[in-house]
Amino acid sequence: MREHEGVTFCAKCFREAIEDRFRKTAIKHHMLEYNDHVAVAVSGGKDSLTLLNLFVKLESRFPRSRITAVCVDEGIDGYREEALEFARGTCEKLGVEQVVVSYRELFGTTTDEIAGMKLGQTPCAYCGVLRRKAINKAAAMIGATKIATGHNLDDEAQTILLNMLHGDPTRIIRSGPVLRDPRGKFVPRIKPLCDIPEKEIVLYAYLTGTEFQSVACPHGHEALRNDIRSFLNQMEQKHPGTKYTLIRSAEKLRSAMSVGSVLAELHECEKCGDPTTHEVCEACLMLEAVAV
Amino acid sequence: MREHEGVTFCAKCFREAIEDRFRKTAIKHHMLEYNDHVAVAVSGGKDSLTLLNLFVKLESRFPRSRITAVCVDEGIDGYREEALEFARGTCEKLGVEQVVVSYRELFGTTTDEIAGMKLGQTPCAYCGVLRRKAINKAAAMIGATKIATGHNLDDEAQTILLNMLHGDPTRIIRSGPVLRDPRGKFVPRIKPLCDIPEKEIVLYAYLTGTEFQSVACPHGHEALRNDIRSFLNQMEQKHPGTKYTLIRSAEKLRSAMSVGSVLAELHECEKCGDPTTHEVCEACLMLEAVAV
Repeated sequence: MREHEGVTFCAKCFREAIEDRFRKTAIKHHMLEYNDHVAVAVSGGKDSLTLLNLFVKLESRFPRSRITAVCVDEGIDGYREEALEFARGTCEKLGVEQVVVSYRELFGTTTDEIAGMKLGQTPCAYCGVLRRKAINKAAAMIGATKIATGHNLDDEAQTILLNMLHGDPTRIIRSGPVLRDPRGKFVPRIKPLCDIPEKEIVLYAYLTGTEFQSVACPHGHEALRNDIRSFLNQMEQKHPGTKYTLIRSAEKLRSAMSVGSVLAELHECEKCGDPTTHEVCEACLMLEAVAV
Repeated sequence: MREHEGVTFCAKCFREAIEDRFRKTAIKHHMLEYNDHVAVAVSGGKDSLTLLNLFVKLESRFPRSRITAVCVDEGIDGYREEALEFARGTCEKLGVEQVVVSYRELFGTTTDEIAGMKLGQTPCAYCGVLRRKAINKAAAMIGATKIATGHNLDDEAQTILLNMLHGDPTRIIRSGPVLRDPRGKFVPRIKPLCDIPEKEIVLYAYLTGTEFQSVACPHGHEALRNDIRSFLNQMEQKHPGTKYTLIRSAEKLRSAMSVGSVLAELHECEKCGDPTTHEVCEACLMLEAVAV
């Protein structure tokens, strides 16, 4: 049942509706070319494994396209191993090539070690920035032309409010369904699940027999995001369609703001060459901090 | 106690802090000239009577300035009379000239009548639009150079989220502390309490012995705003300063969006000449609807 549309599906039609939504989102935002090599960021959770499933279905129609699953081992003992195992299992089942990179090998440290350091920010702040960097590196290694991540409608709606409540609303510009560098220097990032609610992804994963990790990360405590999540879930229940409306608001803001000028602020990090709005990117600053 | 600043005041210092904040907001946003004639919109609630109080204190320093209290009788039986009585009492006490206009006399109807009509929107939607129009008319009648309203920090923070969740985020541009028509055709609107939290206004009203109406309007049921209010109050308690941060986010959005182009969309209503983004303003459209 999709309350905001007032429709009910049988299992088969529901699966088709999700596959359709995925393709329509990709078309609407011009996410894909027929000959793309897509690095699909796979954590082993419901979103990323569903994304991989959907890409495999789509790829069969485009013989010149290619997909590679990119997995990141952040070094979270007793948690990440299981997720990587789910990722490996799904990749094998689907016949998708898998690349695993680790914080240890790329950055010489792990999220567990960072969590023990008593730094200014939560371990999640570091881990998120480093994961983005790790995926960039892996994508460059395999010569990918797109990076796809499993952010769903709920993630996106939460991030919009989070940016507003953090006092950083111009990040909304850089957090849309597609992030392209106008000078073409960085691999574009796409979020083909951004129009699909989280609960529909869980249901799709269940209906397609996808096994995924469902325990939460032991370091996870993004307090503000959790508060926003429950508020938006309450709002969605009372006023179906709230999350979509919020996404549309962000789209309107993006077109009202001078997107060009904000993206033009992106340049190459002096240290590593990755995209940043500062001289040195956040990841390099963090790596300096954790190396002390 | 101001949690977000970590300071505590005695009663006298608290009153001075509020008066100071009011003046600083006015200065920061260039709200006032030494010779303004300010139409202060007074409903009889805590916000508008505090606003009037603060203006009377400020006016004594500017001999060429003038203030008039503008009250609107929306025609809400058993509710508005009491509020108008509080307004009349305070105006007499402060020696402020008072002008009362009514929906009946201006528009030939009342909010009670509109509420009985089973229209597409809530009576609050009509009442809000007509109140703005009534205040515009009263301000024009008395030759005011500014219209001041009692919107506080909580109102403003709620409105920002409301605009986002309503899918109408470019309204954020038109809902700042000051709304000026770039062509100077309409009386500018100012909100000098926009930096003061609601609970501080209640306390200030109490400390200055201001009697105000505290019962809620019988038609009032702005469901979404109420949900947003409780969410923001919870957030403020957990993360003091959240409401200010949200206001700052809106300011950043305003400067990132091409404000000029949005305000330039404002032109005169074909029917009444009031500012509107359409050919005919919302108030005229509503008045047509309720006249049927």
